[in-house]
Amino acid sequence: MVPASPPIRFLQSPTQPAWLDLALANLDEILLDHAHCERKAAGVALNLICRYPSTVPLVRSLTAIAREELEHFDQVNQILLDRGIALRPLVPPPYGAALKAQVRRSEPDRLLDSLLVAALIEARSHERLGLLGQHCPDVALARFYRSLMASEARHYGVYWVLATTEFDRDQVEQRLETLAQAESEALSPLHPQPRIHS
Amino acid sequence: MVPASPPIRFLQSPTQPAWLDLALANLDEILLDHAHCERKAAGVALNLICRYPSTVPLVRSLTAIAREELEHFDQVNQILLDRGIALRPLVPPPYGAALKAQVRRSEPDRLLDSLLVAALIEARSHERLGLLGQHCPDVALARFYRSLMASEARHYGVYWVLATTEFDRDQVEQRLETLAQAESEALSPLHPQPRIHS
Repeated sequence: MVPASPPIRFLQSPTQPAWLDLALANLDEILLDHAHCERKAAGVALNLICRYPSTVPLVRSLTAIAREELEHFDQVNQILLDRGIALRPLVPPPYGAALKAQVRRSEPDRLLDSLLVAALIEARSHERLGLLGQHCPDVALARFYRSLMASEARHYGVYWVLATTEFDRDQVEQRLETLAQAESEALSPLHPQPRIHS
Repeated sequence: MVPASPPIRFLQSPTQPAWLDLALANLDEILLDHAHCERKAAGVALNLICRYPSTVPLVRSLTAIAREELEHFDQVNQILLDRGIALRPLVPPPYGAALKAQVRRSEPDRLLDSLLVAALIEARSHERLGLLGQHCPDVALARFYRSLMASEARHYGVYWVLATTEFDRDQVEQRLETLAQAESEALSPLHPQPRIHS
């Protein structure tokens, strides 16, 4: 099956068709991983607020994002319960660690990289939930995935705006290019376990 | 000034009058610390969800708590902005570390202690925000503190219910007694910096 999603801003390579096949063949596990992704996304926003508590636009925007991620986490958990899928831990794919390794350690580079990595993850989620919303044969689930699209798109926009508010536009675009390359490379060997970011 | 709040379930000693005097003389700093407390409380709930992802009642209840704490965090930040108080980091009082030191490291003790420590912190917040709601001379601020009372009370009830769902009632009550003693002792020398838990 060929993913026919429009190219997503920020992402250098579109998702390969094999990912969608793996995801559609393992919808329960994808749902479970999705729950963990929403929880982790709330944690990322909260950690950034904790690390940069004086940056007003960051604190306000990321509070809104964290609240929304928790709302989605709750929705996914409800779907898991409705479907009798037991909540349980899952081994994460190597994607998150690969991106974290790209974040430079000294400020202000660390802030810029953290914002752009978060933007890339949100952009990839947006692309992949979109593919599920388009191709998932379970009508209710497909509708749910589509219902998340707008906020996922908003989230990567927020991280982008924060980056360009705090940093020079050229610097942001240059760094995004490097990180987007790393993000696409992290997904290039398809991870054998079905995950949102496998 | 003598705090005249009713005794709060769980707490062994009521707040000493000197705390209220210090808080009322430093309302800006208390507001700022309050914001950090709400953010940290959301983080505590999120960490517990992350550590115990298979425990359905815990995941559901603590998602609701985390969402509500973030809503309060947002409200306090709005008040700080309206009052022209700059968001900034604050050195925390020793209270949190003193309670964390009481949490036993091996499971299932760790879960029981984590739930009871969270319950005690919420109970103390409930008591102190109640004192501020009763005695704060700034009418709008007093009203805001009172508006938080119901959910703070609900939160410590939720942690208590989770503890008694997962553990034997006698065991919970016995451990609560020990931890509540430690909680009151941690507040017995009044911390010189004005904090919600100083």
